[in-house]
Amino acid sequence: MSASDRQTPERPGWSGPLRLRDMGSFHIGGQAQTLCGHPTSQHLLAAGGQPVELDPNGTYVTGQMYVQYYWPETPEHTTPLFLWHGGGLTGACWETTPDGRSGWQQYFVRRGWDTHVCDAAERGRSGYAPQFWGLPLSQTVEAVFERFRIGPSLQGAALSDAAQYAFAGSQFPAEAFAAFAQQLVPRWAHTDAMILAAYAALLARQAPAALVCHSQGGMFGLTTALNHPERVRAVVALEPSSVPDCDADSYQVPTLIVLGDFIDGDARWPRMRERILRFAKRNPCVHILSLPALGLHGNSHMLMMDRNHLHIADLVHDWLAAELAKPAAHLRRATVAD
Amino acid sequence: MSASDRQTPERPGWSGPLRLRDMGSFHIGGQAQTLCGHPTSQHLLAAGGQPVELDPNGTYVTGQMYVQYYWPETPEHTTPLFLWHGGGLTGACWETTPDGRSGWQQYFVRRGWDTHVCDAAERGRSGYAPQFWGLPLSQTVEAVFERFRIGPSLQGAALSDAAQYAFAGSQFPAEAFAAFAQQLVPRWAHTDAMILAAYAALLARQAPAALVCHSQGGMFGLTTALNHPERVRAVVALEPSSVPDCDADSYQVPTLIVLGDFIDGDARWPRMRERILRFAKRNPCVHILSLPALGLHGNSHMLMMDRNHLHIADLVHDWLAAELAKPAAHLRRATVAD
Repeated sequence: MSASDRQTPERPGWSGPLRLRDMGSFHIGGQAQTLCGHPTSQHLLAAGGQPVELDPNGTYVTGQMYVQYYWPETPEHTTPLFLWHGGGLTGACWETTPDGRSGWQQYFVRRGWDTHVCDAAERGRSGYAPQFWGLPLSQTVEAVFERFRIGPSLQGAALSDAAQYAFAGSQFPAEAFAAFAQQLVPRWAHTDAMILAAYAALLARQAPAALVCHSQGGMFGLTTALNHPERVRAVVALEPSSVPDCDADSYQVPTLIVLGDFIDGDARWPRMRERILRFAKRNPCVHILSLPALGLHGNSHMLMMDRNHLHIADLVHDWLAAELAKPAAHLRRATVAD
Repeated sequence: MSASDRQTPERPGWSGPLRLRDMGSFHIGGQAQTLCGHPTSQHLLAAGGQPVELDPNGTYVTGQMYVQYYWPETPEHTTPLFLWHGGGLTGACWETTPDGRSGWQQYFVRRGWDTHVCDAAERGRSGYAPQFWGLPLSQTVEAVFERFRIGPSLQGAALSDAAQYAFAGSQFPAEAFAAFAQQLVPRWAHTDAMILAAYAALLARQAPAALVCHSQGGMFGLTTALNHPERVRAVVALEPSSVPDCDADSYQVPTLIVLGDFIDGDARWPRMRERILRFAKRNPCVHILSLPALGLHGNSHMLMMDRNHLHIADLVHDWLAAELAKPAAHLRRATVAD
């Protein structure tokens, strides 16, 4: 999008110059996995290049995860912050909005957090291994338009006309839906354990951490907090696609679950919300932030991309900062239990 | 890798604090593509979540490309710089070396270039579409160890023992070969035209550009310079996997082709070098920089990750800066021909 196409202006001072004390990336986790008994084949990998005899038998690294970090020149928090994306997306979803505004990644860096953006294992720059897993699932843009609660149906319209089919009052920048569709990637449905293992390996290295996670990533964040409470200082789960099935009071990490709008009329979200509310009721450390209940209307499932995304970021930041100012009771308990 | 594992120190002043006037990312290119006539299927995408009926029929965006940019606070060059990775990798290969040193991305930002790292279409955060293309090709770490000229053969050794099997005098940080293996991703063999279309769309927006490209990316850089000379100010191709098959003198863009070591004993690279040298001989704007001929020994195919990677970056930077200080004769010709 060029600047002139933008319908939502940047909040002044929240894009542009940025001073870092370090930035970089790394891969973490994964394992060597061996394939054998398959035939070789010849491939020309570049027109005019030399043919390559590809033997698929041998070793691959699978399940590793890519992490990109940006540490502000003047940090204002001692706890590292991790952004975990949802299904069908990559870490790119935190960097920018479809209409080209600066995203939550920069927001949290500018608020003084050591910010880490992850591509879940098998997504984005983490790599994937179809030679072991077969074909992944891909979601159509029509399904995403509905399931991410941008509008009731695209009705076969061109992507560039998506804004006409969005919910009245939607905060999603649907005029740039085509740019959002460019961000979508395939995923597998049976890789949860592998993805969780990579997240656990990351937090084994940098903990305790604050997690801000979305949709499928929300489920990973909550599950990681349940399994490794000593590694997680606090969780903000934006519309988690599910919640852990655990005994009352067994979930110990301070958690905020944020819910957007248009849930009542959705095919799946009323039941998901019901499950989320039950989880919160059973575990007093879990708090619910319903944006409509707060008077914020029109938010889609892609809260961090909506027109009011920095308003929501402010709420998340303030909750996190207040939570981290309190004594971390669950960390002490985890340490004593060790 | 922790700092204590590093066998090669950072060059002082080339990592750590960094001041940017802007950074961000976007996707560009691609097209809407429709699938029809396939059956639907039910999937549980999150344990405890609501089942999703996935209808694969509908619209997908395919062939788009992810671009991440870092613009220094004090730019020292007016031409934007683009880093294009090779086959089996993503833009991550420019960010860091396997042993955790800071990579060419930061180097060029620190030298004052507006630096853009691309994930080629169908790699990394660009997304991919196996529902249209079938399964991609994956390379074993054993094949990569040989073909990237790190050593003659891993001989079935564990990845952590790779250093023992590297060429004597190798500049590749083979003690961290396992971390390099984490960076590998699958690729397709028939997507060149689609990838080139996305690169062309990018340069249609930000041109004329300086291209620094590697291996398969080298072929894309040279081909883009041949097809769109008006969009390319200069090309540095690190060990391009091929060169365009064009008439003498029809290639017009100032170009430096960099070649590493251990080529003579390789199964494929002597013929590839021969083809590269013929291309340079036919086109006077193409220059060859053979690192061994310059007294720099031990470089692998992964020049930008080798222990002397910043020495090579200096040579590339100096050639680019000198080239950009000259009048751009081919751009004037391209403009006149328009």
